[in-house]
Amino acid sequence: MASIPGFWAVVPAGGAGTRLWPLSRAGHPKFLLDLTGSGRSLLQTTVDRLEPLTAERVLVVTGAAHAEAVRSQLPGLAAAQVLAEPSPLDSMAAIGLAAAVVERRDPDAVIGSFAADHVIPDQAAFEAVIREAASVASSGHLVTIGVEPTWPATGFGYIRAGERLVGAETALHAVAFVEKPDAERVAQYVSSGEFLWNAGMFVARAATLLELLAQWHPDLAGGLRAIAADPARLPELWPGLTRIAIDHAVAEPAADAGRVVVVPAPFAWDDVGDFASLATLLPASGKGDGDSGAEGDGIRGGDGDGIRTRDGDGIRTRDGHGIRGGDGDGIRDLRILGDPGDVMVIDGGGVVVPGSGRRIAIVGLDDVVVVDTPDALLVTTRARAQDVKLVVDALKAEGRTDLT
Amino acid sequence: MASIPGFWAVVPAGGAGTRLWPLSRAGHPKFLLDLTGSGRSLLQTTVDRLEPLTAERVLVVTGAAHAEAVRSQLPGLAAAQVLAEPSPLDSMAAIGLAAAVVERRDPDAVIGSFAADHVIPDQAAFEAVIREAASVASSGHLVTIGVEPTWPATGFGYIRAGERLVGAETALHAVAFVEKPDAERVAQYVSSGEFLWNAGMFVARAATLLELLAQWHPDLAGGLRAIAADPARLPELWPGLTRIAIDHAVAEPAADAGRVVVVPAPFAWDDVGDFASLATLLPASGKGDGDSGAEGDGIRGGDGDGIRTRDGDGIRTRDGHGIRGGDGDGIRDLRILGDPGDVMVIDGGGVVVPGSGRRIAIVGLDDVVVVDTPDALLVTTRARAQDVKLVVDALKAEGRTDLT
Repeated sequence: MASIPGFWAVVPAGGAGTRLWPLSRAGHPKFLLDLTGSGRSLLQTTVDRLEPLTAERVLVVTGAAHAEAVRSQLPGLAAAQVLAEPSPLDSMAAIGLAAAVVERRDPDAVIGSFAADHVIPDQAAFEAVIREAASVASSGHLVTIGVEPTWPATGFGYIRAGERLVGAETALHAVAFVEKPDAERVAQYVSSGEFLWNAGMFVARAATLLELLAQWHPDLAGGLRAIAADPARLPELWPGLTRIAIDHAVAEPAADAGRVVVVPAPFAWDDVGDFASLATLLPASGKGDGDSGAEGDGIRGGDGDGIRTRDGDGIRTRDGHGIRGGDGDGIRDLRILGDPGDVMVIDGGGVVVPGSGRRIAIVGLDDVVVVDTPDALLVTTRARAQDVKLVVDALKAEGRTDLT
Repeated sequence: MASIPGFWAVVPAGGAGTRLWPLSRAGHPKFLLDLTGSGRSLLQTTVDRLEPLTAERVLVVTGAAHAEAVRSQLPGLAAAQVLAEPSPLDSMAAIGLAAAVVERRDPDAVIGSFAADHVIPDQAAFEAVIREAASVASSGHLVTIGVEPTWPATGFGYIRAGERLVGAETALHAVAFVEKPDAERVAQYVSSGEFLWNAGMFVARAATLLELLAQWHPDLAGGLRAIAADPARLPELWPGLTRIAIDHAVAEPAADAGRVVVVPAPFAWDDVGDFASLATLLPASGKGDGDSGAEGDGIRGGDGDGIRTRDGDGIRTRDGHGIRGGDGDGIRDLRILGDPGDVMVIDGGGVVVPGSGRRIAIVGLDDVVVVDTPDALLVTTRARAQDVKLVVDALKAEGRTDLT
């Protein structure tokens, strides 16, 4: 299929990914890492995914500290396609700057914004959803992508969908955005069928986005357009811009005003928020266990579909056959990011990242998370994967910026 | 108190300590390691403990590969006090060679054999027991030390004690030796009060030991005496000697013949067999938790007596106050061998050995064992500490002698 005429992709590449410490650091954050063992970083995979839709009409917006690394990972982009923020100002400034730059090039352009650190394995389904979104957006709506929930996740925001948009294939009116609800409400949301995950993807005419922004934050819209008109003013104007997320700045008030549409997305999607999430993206390892000495003996694993094997109250293997009794000596649901030859598991499983070249031996632990890097080692469990950010908080409190 | 006249200590320094991998390796085995954070290796501590009883009448018997390391750790010993075995032949040859060497120097000498890798914190109690044992041994008995059991351990051999030896302070006739019994029998043994742990310590006149050995293994006794008479014949005669443990060679048949006496030992004793055992020898750490940021907040720990905090079905903190509910964020029974500054625990505890200089972060795991060395990392649990030997077995099967 051809690219979407006049469609630009904006890729905000930010976020520290502290729950993926010690892999993700301030100096080499999540989006620069190959977290799926594909040989491509999350950023590269994101741009690869957008390529068929954009024919290289891509703008990456990232912090000044990462601009060089981003350009190095994406040698196909022109230097001007990587916009460097002098300081972090949340998503509205980043996406809005790209919108203003695109608007000057093509007043009719439609932009879509796609975070640099998300994983969407089904390329065809993704393309179909974005083509529908771009089509709807060209008529002046702010379009969001609402991923159909496969489990009652408490870590995501939700979009409440309403009536079908007249004339649209699948697009629905978006009634409201709800920030990460509690478990009880999530259960209601998911069973109601009216709620979709807010995957943070927005599609709109660049001009529409800036017009909506101007309605509620005129100074921010004006500042961004002024920078796009004269990039030399970036250092002067940027620090005075409003620090706000696109959801609060535009999406929520626009939804209240009936201007937002959501395209339901039936594809698997993951924001690789933590090591439990990462585990679901890695294939089950077929490593032999050390007890029997036989490769492949005693192996049980996930179902290998690579995504979405969580249940409601944390991360578990979804399929019963993935679990053996605790008295066994086999490997259960082992996911390795790195060289399997560096990992030995005797009776257990989990997520192992051998990242220092050392041999890692795990004995008698299920659902463990072991992340080994040259200067830091993390040992936790899938269920506690969210709490890894506490380690980063504590290291920062200690002043150990060398480790964060 | 003065040393025991004519008393020699024999210290067999062998054993790979595979359950303490990756700290203990073939090249630097358990007895050469400081496993208690005292600054002295187990071997050095053992010789220190014997010093008041022997006034430097100590012989260490070790493998040829370790003789240099042993001499280096014990600079106070003369070169001739370290006997190097050309190849490992189990405990009878090692102890018997030392007995034959001592017998030639002093036909009336009493020897005591004490493994190089045991821990006995109560020096005074140890000395009292050995003085009693040496006194009984001088009259021609083979004397063993039977540690009074403090929990139904399945990992040790047991000695069944009988009637009080006539005229002795505490010594009892030893009725039988039982190799590591199963849990059911152990429970019966310990509740009966008749059984003591076989701590592998034997005290006897050197001549008595060799006489008993000659009764059941005349060739072995003859070979050892021939080597003692002409040390130059060691390489020639050693390979032909019988490979047998002292228990089977002498202690068990001598017990059947009514020649063995056991001195009950009321002291704490540990063979540091695995990381669960090691944990009980380390003080509870007072490290602050990362969540609260406050040093000392939320700390719970063992009772700090440093030894014997196990219960029957594995290793646990003995005292109820050492356990908090799983929803806390504190540190529970954390034992660190190494620099506490290298370890951060957020909600959890266990045994941590920071041995590579890297920062180790543990989140949400109790009773975990993390042993970090420059070339290998072990992650297991206290309950599975015995199975660490399976890792070594598997590495050997892979031919990874560099890691074993």
